[in-house]
Amino acid sequence: MSVKAYGAQAADKPLEPLDITRRAPGPHDVQIEIAFCGVCHSDLHTARAEWAGTLFPCVPGHEIVGRVSAVGAHVKGMQPGDLVGVGCMVDSCQHCDDCEAGLENYCDGMVGTYNGPTADAPGHTLGGYSQRIVVHERFVLRIRHPEQQLAAVAPLLCAGITTYSPLRHWQAGPGKKVGIVGIGGLGHMGIKLARAMGAHVVAFTTSESKRKDAESLGAHEVVVSRDPAAMAAQAKSLDLIVNTVAAPHDLDAYLTLLKRDGTMVLVGAPASPHPSPQVFKLIMKRRALAGSMIGGIPETQEMLDFCAQHGIVADIEMIRADEINAAYERMLKGDVKYRFVIDNSTLA
Amino acid sequence: MSVKAYGAQAADKPLEPLDITRRAPGPHDVQIEIAFCGVCHSDLHTARAEWAGTLFPCVPGHEIVGRVSAVGAHVKGMQPGDLVGVGCMVDSCQHCDDCEAGLENYCDGMVGTYNGPTADAPGHTLGGYSQRIVVHERFVLRIRHPEQQLAAVAPLLCAGITTYSPLRHWQAGPGKKVGIVGIGGLGHMGIKLARAMGAHVVAFTTSESKRKDAESLGAHEVVVSRDPAAMAAQAKSLDLIVNTVAAPHDLDAYLTLLKRDGTMVLVGAPASPHPSPQVFKLIMKRRALAGSMIGGIPETQEMLDFCAQHGIVADIEMIRADEINAAYERMLKGDVKYRFVIDNSTLA
Repeated sequence: MSVKAYGAQAADKPLEPLDITRRAPGPHDVQIEIAFCGVCHSDLHTARAEWAGTLFPCVPGHEIVGRVSAVGAHVKGMQPGDLVGVGCMVDSCQHCDDCEAGLENYCDGMVGTYNGPTADAPGHTLGGYSQRIVVHERFVLRIRHPEQQLAAVAPLLCAGITTYSPLRHWQAGPGKKVGIVGIGGLGHMGIKLARAMGAHVVAFTTSESKRKDAESLGAHEVVVSRDPAAMAAQAKSLDLIVNTVAAPHDLDAYLTLLKRDGTMVLVGAPASPHPSPQVFKLIMKRRALAGSMIGGIPETQEMLDFCAQHGIVADIEMIRADEINAAYERMLKGDVKYRFVIDNSTLA
Repeated sequence: MSVKAYGAQAADKPLEPLDITRRAPGPHDVQIEIAFCGVCHSDLHTARAEWAGTLFPCVPGHEIVGRVSAVGAHVKGMQPGDLVGVGCMVDSCQHCDDCEAGLENYCDGMVGTYNGPTADAPGHTLGGYSQRIVVHERFVLRIRHPEQQLAAVAPLLCAGITTYSPLRHWQAGPGKKVGIVGIGGLGHMGIKLARAMGAHVVAFTTSESKRKDAESLGAHEVVVSRDPAAMAAQAKSLDLIVNTVAAPHDLDAYLTLLKRDGTMVLVGAPASPHPSPQVFKLIMKRRALAGSMIGGIPETQEMLDFCAQHGIVADIEMIRADEINAAYERMLKGDVKYRFVIDNSTLA
């Protein structure tokens, strides 16, 4: 059936209203009326074909929350009326080692929520800037937050899990000192999550103006990374750094802050490479530079439940669908605290 | 007392015979008559001041084996006549977290066996290209190999522990596929050790001519890294790579070979940086790029015992002390299988 959406017809065109079709739910499918969709930087990269391989028309959006309107015959544990979410993926091979480990995000056959291969028209997936979506039950998450928080839950599906997964994997918690670099869509979630996990949280920002905000978000300490003395005071003290900054920057300045066996995890990929990190920085304290990409389905559910339990949502600014192009421009300037969320009722 | 040594008076001078002094053993000191000393690439870098901070006269050598000739009053468990070794360090602060964890190699106060700070004349430590050394008991290792293997044990003290430590730390063993990049002083030990630990070992070399040797050393597979098809066949298959190559090279070619959660550990530091690794290579499979530097004293003893038990020694070419300058030239060309060892009796 046809539903209304917002998307780009070409890399150099603004997003505009589109009509797209959604398949009828198969036996394992869940049909969701989308209430809200968060706006991720990846949406912009893809819509503007800044990464290779964008297929048009492009309907971005992978921070999807809404209500189940129909389920296939074999779907278990979900029914119409349930509050649910869909994140960055809608399918995977479902049988490789990664999938069996619940890490579908690392499956070679992972299908992104938009711009991924699908048998549905037009041959690639179309995301959450739309009224409705139909998704295999494995990739549908239960939302246990109160309904009035639903819009602010949306960004948990990408920004939340992208920071939660490395924090858990590298064991952020009591007794650990954790750095979060960059206070944006991802970073503001990283601060909240690391704090709720019980870690001592140090937020790093280039901008003194974000100090108060970072403290409000839960940071125990805020370091302005342009202040050499403040950086030096953190030397060799951090167990883990989650670096959310996708722009190329000096990684050595942060590697130096790790204690022995510390890890800096990159969750943003710059379009051009970072300056090459000094090997000595890694060797001298057995440090590691790692990457992490979103998270698996079981840990996404765990993250949503953790957030519901701790009262964690994203800080958002709600927009109408027809404000998306302006929102992209503001996002490029970092002018959002901290995530735009589309009110999908404005697509009607 | 004065002992004979071989060292450099300046960065641009060849090594030559020197007379140096050694302190009388203090209460916790062990005095060792050096039988053999391995020749490490670091020796050359330091003697030629290719790394910052070389102090002259410079007496290199940190793969030291010999026999105890005297012990201080408080030394326990060692006595004259014992076969012992000294590796890359002769002191540390002995009370920080790293030292308490038995990882003196990561202590900020670690004192290198040469070119480190000391109260002894001339104010910096002088290494194993000498007849005798006096070392705090904590940094003296017991050698349980048969005495006729003593010369070939020497390289275990640096090349051995430098590869053993990351192999153990990142859990090489049965069921794990481990890559060793570079078949030189470090790499040939890495192959032997990883094999003895029970891992499936893949040796990577730029040179087809090293295939047979790598197999003899214990590699299950040998991949010539200039062969794109052979490299592609290893994609996403390795749990761990220990990369011993200090020359700048393309790290992405190896990161691609790691499976999810795999780690590549760098144990060599290039004088100029490697090309910057692609962040996507790290993010896509939650891979890590790490560093490791020699190893702690308890694990060095563990490594020596492991090698004694498994009959592992280095492949060496013995030289006279006065052949050291020629040996450096050959080492620069990779013309050694796989480690030069000085017969310190030729210093007399």
